[in-house]
Amino acid sequence: MFKIAISARNKLEGVVTKIEKGAVASTVKIEISGSTNLTSMITKEAVEELNLKEGDKVEAVIKATEIMISKE
Amino acid sequence: MFKIAISARNKLEGVVTKIEKGAVASTVKIEISGSTNLTSMITKEAVEELNLKEGDKVEAVIKATEIMISKE
Amino acid sequence: MFKIAISARNKLEGVVTKIEKGAVASTVKIEISGSTNLTSMITKEAVEELNLKEGDKVEAVIKATEIMISKE
Amino acid sequence: MFKIAISARNKLEGVVTKIEKGAVASTVKIEISGSTNLTSMITKEAVEELNLKEGDKVEAVIKATEIMISKE
Amino acid sequence: MFKIAISARNKLEGVVTKIEKGAVASTVKIEISGSTNLTSMITKEAVEELNLKEGDKVEAVIKATEIMISKE
Amino acid sequence: MFKIAISARNKLEGVVTKIEKGAVASTVKIEISGSTNLTSMITKEAVEELNLKEGDKVEAVIKATEIMISKE
Repeated sequence: MFKIAISARNKLEGVVTKIEKGAVASTVKIEISGSTNLTSMITKEAVEELNLKEGDKVEAVIKATEIMISKE
Repeated sequence: MFKIAISARNKLEGVVTKIEKGAVASTVKIEISGSTNLTSMITKEAVEELNLKEGDKVEAVIKATEIMISKE
Repeated sequence: MFKIAISARNKLEGVVTKIEKGAVASTVKIEISGSTNLTSMITKEAVEELNLKEGDKVEAVIKATEIMISKE
Repeated sequence: MFKIAISARNKLEGVVTKIEKGAVASTVKIEISGSTNLTSMITKEAVEELNLKEGDKVEAVIKATEIMISKE
Repeated sequence: MFKIAISARNKLEGVVTKIEKGAVASTVKIEISGSTNLTSMITKEAVEELNLKEGDKVEAVIKATEIMISKE
Repeated sequence: MFKIAISARNKLEGVVTKIEKGAVASTVKIEISGSTNLTSMITKEAVEELNLKEGDKVEAVIKATEIMISKE
């Protein structure tokens, strides 16, 4: 799969499983492995411009500063 | 493993594989599956207060608004 | 009150005073002292999964990189 | 105290209690009440351009999307 | 035009060209030069409190940690 | 110039004018027009993996939720 050359350090391949649209925001569910799902909130405009739909192969892209760490 | 009750929608279990400390910031590498690694940049203070070290089981925690989506 | 072990450096105890739900996003008002209120925008899904309601004791959790500083 | 007209919803008045500078990043501690402190990580350039020093009265400014909520 | 004294490093002057309001979020289009437009998603409350409307002269304010870099 | 297909709504073309590296973080200055410069703080690892250097043509990429609005 393609890899964009961007400073954001984290890229996880997955498949879109659900899209929910609000007036200006949208949530997109991405299955990145059999048991792990991500929830993304982006603009509705981005969903439409990327023509996102269920079943699409996508990459979740995340900046290093946005990965918090939790430990028991 | 524990699950913290927090509004952030995304939690990925992993193991710390590398920690690099700067004067005030640090980067932490987390292996979340055999072939997938995350890079986190947090404060050095957080690394020390959580007593993070290689081999620790942790959760990467990410807000929904921080998951961007890229499509070919 | 509980303290979650997370890299995010900032935790402010408060009480939920108002919740407003949109189709996918929600705003939550949190009173952290007699005269200070916070406004949080999270996913509607998070509001529902945490079963957030007015009067709930909560913690506002904020990463160090998200605290900007303004000076006169 | 001054209030800047900015879309960021959250402003907390406080006093700078400690500044730690790295090569490009810095951490700034802000006491917002007798028992509550915030940790901010900003660029070293911002610390210098604002001429931040211990004892300064400042406002911590935080966007609504950056306030996570944790509940027991 | 005014310059707010804030740690956020990036300020771009522009004119509001379009506002779209959802239940709790809103998108605001800002023209920063003849051919360049920005899209901002903020709370509806911020739009109303700043009394934002088409034609307003504004500044887009962005933290240094939010500027990603992409290279061919 | 290339346009990456990513949900982030804002892309500004520019030229790298200065790079300053810390132990784990780096700041990158980008000139997006004759009089406007951006400051980005990313990981040192990203600077090295993208092989960023002064004079490089790049795109600054910014999510819609990271564009705050300030008004006089």
